[in-house]
Amino acid sequence: MTPRVDVFGAAGYAGALCARLLHRHPSFMLTAVTARADVGRRLDDIYPHHRVPLVLEELDLDRHADVEAAIVAYPHGAAAEVVADLHRRDVKVVDLSADFRLRDPAVYEEWYRPHPEPALIADAVYGLPEHYRDEIADAAIVANPGCYPTAAVLGLAPLARAGLIADVVIDAKSGVSGAGRGATDKTHFVTVDENLNPYGVPRHRHTPEIEQELATLGAEMPITFTPHLIPLDQGELVSCYVTPAADADDVVMLYREAYADELFVEVVSGPPGVRDVRETNICRISVHRDERTGRVIVFSVIDNLWKGAASQAVQNLNLMFGRPEEEGIS
Amino acid sequence: MTPRVDVFGAAGYAGALCARLLHRHPSFMLTAVTARADVGRRLDDIYPHHRVPLVLEELDLDRHADVEAAIVAYPHGAAAEVVADLHRRDVKVVDLSADFRLRDPAVYEEWYRPHPEPALIADAVYGLPEHYRDEIADAAIVANPGCYPTAAVLGLAPLARAGLIADVVIDAKSGVSGAGRGATDKTHFVTVDENLNPYGVPRHRHTPEIEQELATLGAEMPITFTPHLIPLDQGELVSCYVTPAADADDVVMLYREAYADELFVEVVSGPPGVRDVRETNICRISVHRDERTGRVIVFSVIDNLWKGAASQAVQNLNLMFGRPEEEGIS
Amino acid sequence: MTPRVDVFGAAGYAGALCARLLHRHPSFMLTAVTARADVGRRLDDIYPHHRVPLVLEELDLDRHADVEAAIVAYPHGAAAEVVADLHRRDVKVVDLSADFRLRDPAVYEEWYRPHPEPALIADAVYGLPEHYRDEIADAAIVANPGCYPTAAVLGLAPLARAGLIADVVIDAKSGVSGAGRGATDKTHFVTVDENLNPYGVPRHRHTPEIEQELATLGAEMPITFTPHLIPLDQGELVSCYVTPAADADDVVMLYREAYADELFVEVVSGPPGVRDVRETNICRISVHRDERTGRVIVFSVIDNLWKGAASQAVQNLNLMFGRPEEEGIS
Amino acid sequence: MTPRVDVFGAAGYAGALCARLLHRHPSFMLTAVTARADVGRRLDDIYPHHRVPLVLEELDLDRHADVEAAIVAYPHGAAAEVVADLHRRDVKVVDLSADFRLRDPAVYEEWYRPHPEPALIADAVYGLPEHYRDEIADAAIVANPGCYPTAAVLGLAPLARAGLIADVVIDAKSGVSGAGRGATDKTHFVTVDENLNPYGVPRHRHTPEIEQELATLGAEMPITFTPHLIPLDQGELVSCYVTPAADADDVVMLYREAYADELFVEVVSGPPGVRDVRETNICRISVHRDERTGRVIVFSVIDNLWKGAASQAVQNLNLMFGRPEEEGIS
Repeated sequence: MTPRVDVFGAAGYAGALCARLLHRHPSFMLTAVTARADVGRRLDDIYPHHRVPLVLEELDLDRHADVEAAIVAYPHGAAAEVVADLHRRDVKVVDLSADFRLRDPAVYEEWYRPHPEPALIADAVYGLPEHYRDEIADAAIVANPGCYPTAAVLGLAPLARAGLIADVVIDAKSGVSGAGRGATDKTHFVTVDENLNPYGVPRHRHTPEIEQELATLGAEMPITFTPHLIPLDQGELVSCYVTPAADADDVVMLYREAYADELFVEVVSGPPGVRDVRETNICRISVHRDERTGRVIVFSVIDNLWKGAASQAVQNLNLMFGRPEEEGIS
Repeated sequence: MTPRVDVFGAAGYAGALCARLLHRHPSFMLTAVTARADVGRRLDDIYPHHRVPLVLEELDLDRHADVEAAIVAYPHGAAAEVVADLHRRDVKVVDLSADFRLRDPAVYEEWYRPHPEPALIADAVYGLPEHYRDEIADAAIVANPGCYPTAAVLGLAPLARAGLIADVVIDAKSGVSGAGRGATDKTHFVTVDENLNPYGVPRHRHTPEIEQELATLGAEMPITFTPHLIPLDQGELVSCYVTPAADADDVVMLYREAYADELFVEVVSGPPGVRDVRETNICRISVHRDERTGRVIVFSVIDNLWKGAASQAVQNLNLMFGRPEEEGIS
Repeated sequence: MTPRVDVFGAAGYAGALCARLLHRHPSFMLTAVTARADVGRRLDDIYPHHRVPLVLEELDLDRHADVEAAIVAYPHGAAAEVVADLHRRDVKVVDLSADFRLRDPAVYEEWYRPHPEPALIADAVYGLPEHYRDEIADAAIVANPGCYPTAAVLGLAPLARAGLIADVVIDAKSGVSGAGRGATDKTHFVTVDENLNPYGVPRHRHTPEIEQELATLGAEMPITFTPHLIPLDQGELVSCYVTPAADADDVVMLYREAYADELFVEVVSGPPGVRDVRETNICRISVHRDERTGRVIVFSVIDNLWKGAASQAVQNLNLMFGRPEEEGIS
Repeated sequence: MTPRVDVFGAAGYAGALCARLLHRHPSFMLTAVTARADVGRRLDDIYPHHRVPLVLEELDLDRHADVEAAIVAYPHGAAAEVVADLHRRDVKVVDLSADFRLRDPAVYEEWYRPHPEPALIADAVYGLPEHYRDEIADAAIVANPGCYPTAAVLGLAPLARAGLIADVVIDAKSGVSGAGRGATDKTHFVTVDENLNPYGVPRHRHTPEIEQELATLGAEMPITFTPHLIPLDQGELVSCYVTPAADADDVVMLYREAYADELFVEVVSGPPGVRDVRETNICRISVHRDERTGRVIVFSVIDNLWKGAASQAVQNLNLMFGRPEEEGIS
C-alpha cells in the first residue's frame, strides 16, 4: 500500500516544497498539509508554481497523525514536541528543524535553549544520506540536516576522513529563501537588492552541527563559520579554506573516488556556481590546492531549499520506506 | 536667516531621503526628524548610505513646529491632521501624501475616505513645479504629486495642452521602493525577485490625480491606468498610449519646445531607461508616432523616490523660499 | 519504435532547453545536438542545470537528418534553408524561428527580408496547439509561435472570437533570456540590472504575427505592440488594453468557458505574476473590466523559454507523433 | 589656474566615473575624454546617468597631453606605455591599471607579463591615501590600488601594524561592474542573475598586491585570496579570517584608534553591508573576535567603482594638487 504522508508546517518555503515533491511522488500519497499561519488558504494560492491543490489545515493530531510518515517543517524549538507526539503514535518523521540534529543536549542548550525532548535524541538519525544511509533506512526519526551543514560536510568529508584537516574556515553565501518566509526589514526587497552582508557573526547556530559531523569523520576541532546574505532567491555556496594536516597532493583524486558512487554529489574541476544545481538535489563540489600557501580550498554548492531542505527530506523518506533514493527528486 | 525645516515621518523611504537632501542643502537647516516607528534610532543606523546623523524623535508639535517649514511624509489619511496643525502654526508645509492633491473632496472621498480637513484644500497648491511654479512660490501648503502622476502628467502635458488627447492608456512600471518600507509578503525579496505583476487593478488611487491634472490642461476624460511591480529598487517608467484627437505629425518638436526651458525635463529621441535618471530629479521623456495605428506613444521615466517624491519636495521648498529651483538637488 | 529527434541550434537558450526536455522525454530519443558556435563543447558544460551529457556537433545533414523529427532553433533568416533541407529529406520539423509563421510572404518581407523559401510556407502550420491542434497533428513543418504572440494571442482569443475587440494596445514585459544568449551591451548585467526600458519601438517584429492570428479569429486590425526589457531571467507578461466593440459584461465567464478544457491555459481571478508559471508550459490569464472607461484589460503570463519557445515546441512534437500533449512537459 | 585634466580610457566603467567626478569637481577642469572604443560617441549617450556632455576622442598625445594631469583607465599592460608617454611630457598621472602597483618587476612578471616600463616603477607611488598621503602629494605617477586590495589592506592594516597577523584567508565578493564593461558570457545578465560563483581560483592577480602592502606594514607572508562574483551592480565585501600572532583582545579599540582621523574609513560595530557605502568614497570596516577559535574576523566594504577605483583616483589627484582630500567626492 502506498504510504500516506502529511507535511506539517507547509506554509513556509521548505514545507511547501516538500508538499510539491510528495504531491507528485510516485510512491507516497500526500494526504494533508498543515500550517500555523494561512490556515484555510490553498497552497497553490500562496505558491502557484508548486501547483499543489490542497488547503492548509490547522494541526489536529487525531486526524493528521493517521499516516505512515510525516515531514515536520516547524521552527527550531517548536518542532520537538510535535515530533515526539508523532513518534508516540508510531509515525515515522523527517524533521527539518535543528531539534534532533545535535546528539549532545548540552550542546543544543548552549546554542539554542534547553532541549524539550532529550530522551528522544537517541532515537534520531542525522539525515545526511551519503553518510548514514543504513541508519536512516531503519530510523523512526530523521533529523534533516541544515542547509549549510549539508554543503559544508559533504564538501569537507573526504578531507576529514583522510585526516587531512588541521584547521578550517568556512565562508558561506546563501540566497534569501534561506532566511524564511517571514517578512521583516532584513528580507524586504529594498534591503537585500544590490546589497551583500555577513550575518550571524561570530556564532551562527549551524556551527556546532558542522563540528559534530566533522568530528564523526575524524576531524574534531572548533571551526570558523560565517554566512553571508546574497541578493538571489535560492542557492548556497560554501567556500572552505583548509589548512591541511599533512601533504595533500592528490585531493582531486581523493574527492573523485569518495563520490564516485554517489548519485547526488558531483565533483567538478572548475569552481561551481549555484545555478548549476538550481532546483536539484545535487551537491556540486570542486577542490583546489593553493600551491603558494599549501592550503586546500573546497567549493560546495547546493540549492538550499532542495538538497538543503526539502528534496533531501524526500531522499530520506525514500530510504526509510525502501524506495529508490532518487525517486521523485531527480 | 537660514530657514529651519523638520521632516515628519523620516523613517520611511521618501521621508529619509528628504532628510538626506535637506541635511546637505546649502540654504535650509534640517533641525529634526520625527517618526512614528523607530523612535530613538539614528537615521544613519537605518539608512547608512544617507549619512544623516540625527536621531528619530517622537512628534511633539510644540518643539517640532518651531520651524519655518516642514516636510510631512505620512501615509494618506494620517497626514491631513498634522498638515492642519502645522498650517495653524504658520509653518509652511510640503505634504508627500495624497491628502491635498485632489481639489474636489468628493473625489477624494470616492477613492480614499471622507476628507479629514476639507476646508484646507483651497489653501493647497499641487506641487508640480513645471506647471505651478508661481502658485507654489506663494503657497502655504504644497501637495507633492504622486510618483506615477509626476511621470504621467509631465509625459502627457504637451499633448494635452495641444488638445491632442482623445483617449489614453497608461501602463506604468515601478521598482519596489514605491511600495514603501513596510515588510509584507508582497515586498519580501523572494516574492518580488524574478517576478513581475500588475497591481491595483483596475482602480489604482493615482488615477483621479492624473485625470485631474490632465483636465486642467484641457484633456478631460476618464483614463485607464495600470501599475506593475518590477524587481528593482528605485525607478519608474510610464508608457502612455494616446489615441490622438487630431493629426499629430510633429509631436517630437512639440515636446522639445514644451520643455526647452525646463531644467529637470529632458526630451530624448530613443526610449529612455530608468537608470538614465537614477538618483536625480530628472524626468526623461521620449515621444513616438506609430504610423500604422496613428497612435502616439510616450515614455516617461523618473526615480520614484527623487522626482517622484523627495527631490521634488525639495524643489518645491526651494520655490517656496525663493531659492534657485535646482539648489541641493542637482 | 521511439522517434529520434535532433535539435539544431542547441547552444542558444531555447534550443538547449528543447534538448533538455527531449533528453528526458519518455517517447522521443534525442540523438544529436548541433550548433553554429561552441561546437565540441558538452551541453552540460555550458548549461550545467540542464544536465544533457551530449557534445555540440557541427551540422552535417547527411548524419543529422537521419531522424524522424528535428527542432530547429536558428535565428530568423538562417532557419528557412535548414528547414527546407530537412523537409526535402522527409524529416518533420518544428521551427522556432519566425520564418514560417507569417502566411503572407509579402508581410514577411516587409518586417524581415525577402522570404528565402516562399514555396514552403503553405506546408507550414502555426504551432499554437490551442488553436491548431488538428492541423499540427498532420503537419510536416510547424512554425513555433513567438513568445509575445503566444501570450498575446492566448490572452486575446476569447475576445477576438466573440467579436469584442474594436481596438487593442499590448504592453509587453519580458525577462532577459528573451534577448538570447548573445553577449552585448544590452544584455550585460550592469546594463539590465536596476533598469527597465522599452525596445523595438514602434515596430517590433512580433506585431504582424499577433495581427495575423487575431485576424484569423475575427479581429482584423492594426495593433499597437510595445515590449519592455525587465531585470529578470525568464518570464513574460503581456498587458492588453482592449476597447470593446460591444458590451463586454461577462468577460470572466467568457474566458473560463473558452479555456475550460485546456490543460495549459489557466484563467485566474486576480492579476497573475510571471513566477506563477516559471518553468512550466502554462499560460495564465486574468481578465478585468474597467467600469470607468469600459475598457477590458487582459493580463497573460508565460515563461518565455517554455511555453514561449521550448516546451511549446515539444507540445507540438507530441501532437505530430500522436503522443499525449502534456508528455514530457508537465 | 585651475589644473586641466584628461581621462584616457573613459568608455569603461571606472574611466567614465572619473570623468563624471572631474566634470563636477570645483578645482579641476575636465578637458577631454579619450577612448579606444566608442570614439565619436557622447559620454552621456553611453552613460546617461553620469551626465557628462563630452564626446569620446581618439587618443592624440599632442593634443591630449597638454594638461596638468591625466587619469589613465586602460587595461593592465596597455597602460604602462601611455603612462610613460605622459610622464615624459611632465603630465602628472593617476594610473588605474596594475602596471605600477607592484614595486618588484619580477613579481609583476610572475603574475602578469614582462614589465613594459620597469625604469618608471621607482617614480610611482602606491595610491592608497590613508597610507601614502605624503608620498602621493609629491608623486608624478600614482598607481591607483586595485579594488580588492583597497578593501583588504584597509581592513587588515591595524592588525598588520600591530604584528598580529600570523596567517590570513581573504574571501572576497564583488558586484559585476568589477568585471568591466566587456560583454561576455560571464557578464551576460542570464549568467549572473540568480547565480554566485568563485573565480580566479587559486591565483587571482590581486594577491601579490595585497601581500606587498601587508608586508610593508609588517605582515610578510603568502595569503589565500579568493574572489566571488555576486549578482549586483556595484559593491564589494572582503571577509578576512586572521589567525592572530598574539593575544588580540582589544581589536575593536585598535581599529577605532587607527582610523579615528580618517575621513573615508568608518569602523562600525556590526557587520557592514555594501549598500552602506554605495556611491561613496568610504571604506566601512567591522572587526570581531571569535572566542571559540581565537580567530579575528574583519569585514570591509567599499564601492568597487568609487573607493575601489574612480573616487580614490580623484582623492589622489586632490592630494597631488594640494586640494582638500575630500573635494569633489563627498
